[in-house]
Amino acid sequence: MRQMHLGLFLLGTGSHVAGWRMPGAVTSFQDIQAIQAMAAQAERGCFDLIFMGDNLYADPGAHPSYTVRLEPLTMLAALAMVTKHIGLGATVATTYSDPWSVARAFASLDHISGGRAAWNAVTGSSAQAGPNFGRLHPNHAERYAIAAEFVEVVRGLWDGWEEDALVADRESGLYVDPARLHKLNHEGAHFSVQGPLNIGRSPQGRPVILQAGGSDAGLDLAARTADVVFAVVQEFEEARTQYAALKSRLPALGRRPEEVAVLPGVMPIVGRTEREALDKLAQLQAFISPTNARQLLQDRLGVDLAGRDMDAPLGDMPLFDGGHGFARALLNKARRDNLTLRDIYNLLGAARGHWVLCGAAEQVADTLQHWFENGAADGFNVMPSHFPGGMEDFVELVVPILQRRGLFRTRYEGTTLRDLLGLRRPARGEG
Amino acid sequence: MRQMHLGLFLLGTGSHVAGWRMPGAVTSFQDIQAIQAMAAQAERGCFDLIFMGDNLYADPGAHPSYTVRLEPLTMLAALAMVTKHIGLGATVATTYSDPWSVARAFASLDHISGGRAAWNAVTGSSAQAGPNFGRLHPNHAERYAIAAEFVEVVRGLWDGWEEDALVADRESGLYVDPARLHKLNHEGAHFSVQGPLNIGRSPQGRPVILQAGGSDAGLDLAARTADVVFAVVQEFEEARTQYAALKSRLPALGRRPEEVAVLPGVMPIVGRTEREALDKLAQLQAFISPTNARQLLQDRLGVDLAGRDMDAPLGDMPLFDGGHGFARALLNKARRDNLTLRDIYNLLGAARGHWVLCGAAEQVADTLQHWFENGAADGFNVMPSHFPGGMEDFVELVVPILQRRGLFRTRYEGTTLRDLLGLRRPARGEG
Repeated sequence: MRQMHLGLFLLGTGSHVAGWRMPGAVTSFQDIQAIQAMAAQAERGCFDLIFMGDNLYADPGAHPSYTVRLEPLTMLAALAMVTKHIGLGATVATTYSDPWSVARAFASLDHISGGRAAWNAVTGSSAQAGPNFGRLHPNHAERYAIAAEFVEVVRGLWDGWEEDALVADRESGLYVDPARLHKLNHEGAHFSVQGPLNIGRSPQGRPVILQAGGSDAGLDLAARTADVVFAVVQEFEEARTQYAALKSRLPALGRRPEEVAVLPGVMPIVGRTEREALDKLAQLQAFISPTNARQLLQDRLGVDLAGRDMDAPLGDMPLFDGGHGFARALLNKARRDNLTLRDIYNLLGAARGHWVLCGAAEQVADTLQHWFENGAADGFNVMPSHFPGGMEDFVELVVPILQRRGLFRTRYEGTTLRDLLGLRRPARGEG
Repeated sequence: MRQMHLGLFLLGTGSHVAGWRMPGAVTSFQDIQAIQAMAAQAERGCFDLIFMGDNLYADPGAHPSYTVRLEPLTMLAALAMVTKHIGLGATVATTYSDPWSVARAFASLDHISGGRAAWNAVTGSSAQAGPNFGRLHPNHAERYAIAAEFVEVVRGLWDGWEEDALVADRESGLYVDPARLHKLNHEGAHFSVQGPLNIGRSPQGRPVILQAGGSDAGLDLAARTADVVFAVVQEFEEARTQYAALKSRLPALGRRPEEVAVLPGVMPIVGRTEREALDKLAQLQAFISPTNARQLLQDRLGVDLAGRDMDAPLGDMPLFDGGHGFARALLNKARRDNLTLRDIYNLLGAARGHWVLCGAAEQVADTLQHWFENGAADGFNVMPSHFPGGMEDFVELVVPILQRRGLFRTRYEGTTLRDLLGLRRPARGEG
């Protein structure tokens, strides 16, 4: 029977902008002990993977609780030593790094974790990163052109070493067989990379690739190279449409639909009863500062809101050049439901534009099952409002229901993230 | 009483080119469990730090046993979770990275390890890295100009957050105080970096900076910015000269001599008797393949050896544009002692150009004490021939003697690497 895949999205103190203000909530995302406890919760819940978001600038105005964090690869390498089963997905942007270093670092994480590494390949949607790297942020099309070549080079570098290139034969003295190392000699529009890496083929053959692109260029790249796609959607029909848009591209690329798992992001607010869940959401929402919410809204929509009537229907508003799909998903919803700017910022405050699912545990499980069984999801990227409470509610109350219904694993099997995702280990040079 | 500082140099399977062929020796440096055991040995021996070397290419011809490795930052972040006291120094080259990413990653490692991070800032001496990054390897002067600016930017970024910028006050809702974050706005010849980082000031204030430069430009950079210097020397007088060359530069820069620890690299071959030690060295040397040694020799000297008489005295040989000081140290020794190319390659095979100290434990301790007490060293960067044996001999036989003589700590005190090194935690903007 087909089963769900569950990711735990980690970034900052939780996905609700003010979740850290909840009593007892974790207030620092640079505290490795607190983060280790989050990973332990996810492993107790038999989650497939941790999915760490990232961006490359500090923005204390619009994103205060996301402004402090550990660097993803060091954080996940640390977690590799204190977890046993869960996949470890780190975001690294293709716009501000280089393929040799990225390929090498993820191969290293894959070795360290015994085959649990995943790379969330993003282009980086915000121009705010540019000045930290002395560069102009490229436009959307350019970013995706760079990303496509970057991912191709990384995959090529991961294939540079044959399985048995590290011989280490004490008798003959042959340590590495040079004939089993292969240069890539890539020469493209954006990169020139010789290879090979200075690390052997990793336990998964190639680390898993995650992507989150919602734009046409993003779906295209995901269809060609991603193993897991993180979808930004607000509602069922929209999720079905995006799901189909991605899966329908696969056959022409020689890939089967089940080779790519689509996981919509969801912030579950769970109670023993619906009343209890609604009270939790109200408590969280009461912590939102209007100033922060307005800045976040401007940032997400890419529009100056000065002088805008917060309580008038939204009407037409131009989309900005953002890659995350937040603006699109929000504006679609706003037009459909005739929302005001204030309505949108309440939504944004809750989950930064992601889907909020609030209800009793059974209701939440029902909705997830409905999406899963009706062409909208292969699982979910769970975005707890705060830690440990927001995650605890999901793991203690919702996961057992999914397990009883046979929709989710009750224990880990296999050893690698590919095993958890039902993906085969690729041979060198294979698709 | 002044005490030694000891570093454990890690790169590949050990510092002897063929050490991995010893019975029972570790044969893979991409096996985190094996590396964890090395770190545990060093902590049992009360070492100050692990010092991981690196370079950015695979070279199975000249450096087979160094061709396979984990990436330094992920490796040390992993070790941070399974060690308690020891400093964690990772090499990252300034020629092929960017200051924002490097500053961020080391701040992250410092948070993860509770204040044990160190950055070995190297320029990268080999032109072989260039083609992996689509770039021409800059010449020596240009590399050092880039490195000087790079280190300045990194230090500036580490100072971008005031200590108490992360407020996280549940009552007021103030998470980060934007007034306590400071942009760097660096505009230099090689880098333009705005800042600040997206991570708070780290436990050590600034991670420790290691350097290994032996050239004039290298000594200059080290005198201005390094906390620990890894010296490549072969003999006592040479070590004294280099030690003095570095220390004498400090006063003009407003630094006291004890603010920079100079640690010559040494491969100790230790026995219970001198005979036992000599036998171990002979056993190691017998494993060297002549082909590998010749390639290593060409690589280190930067000279084509085709047609050269291996058994004639060396005579004059031009120095190549290398930053490591290996060539200089070797050629000095060769001229002084009238060595042949074959003699040099035997030396190189043993420790790749570093100092080999072979003897009974008491003899080894005597020599280290002599260097330490006579202006040649503040401690040593220990480069075991292989693991676990080569390191075990040093920790079990030599360290207790140094401890009995009051030359080395018997237990850890303090919590950070700065504590171990006797360095104060710098305030923002301080020297």
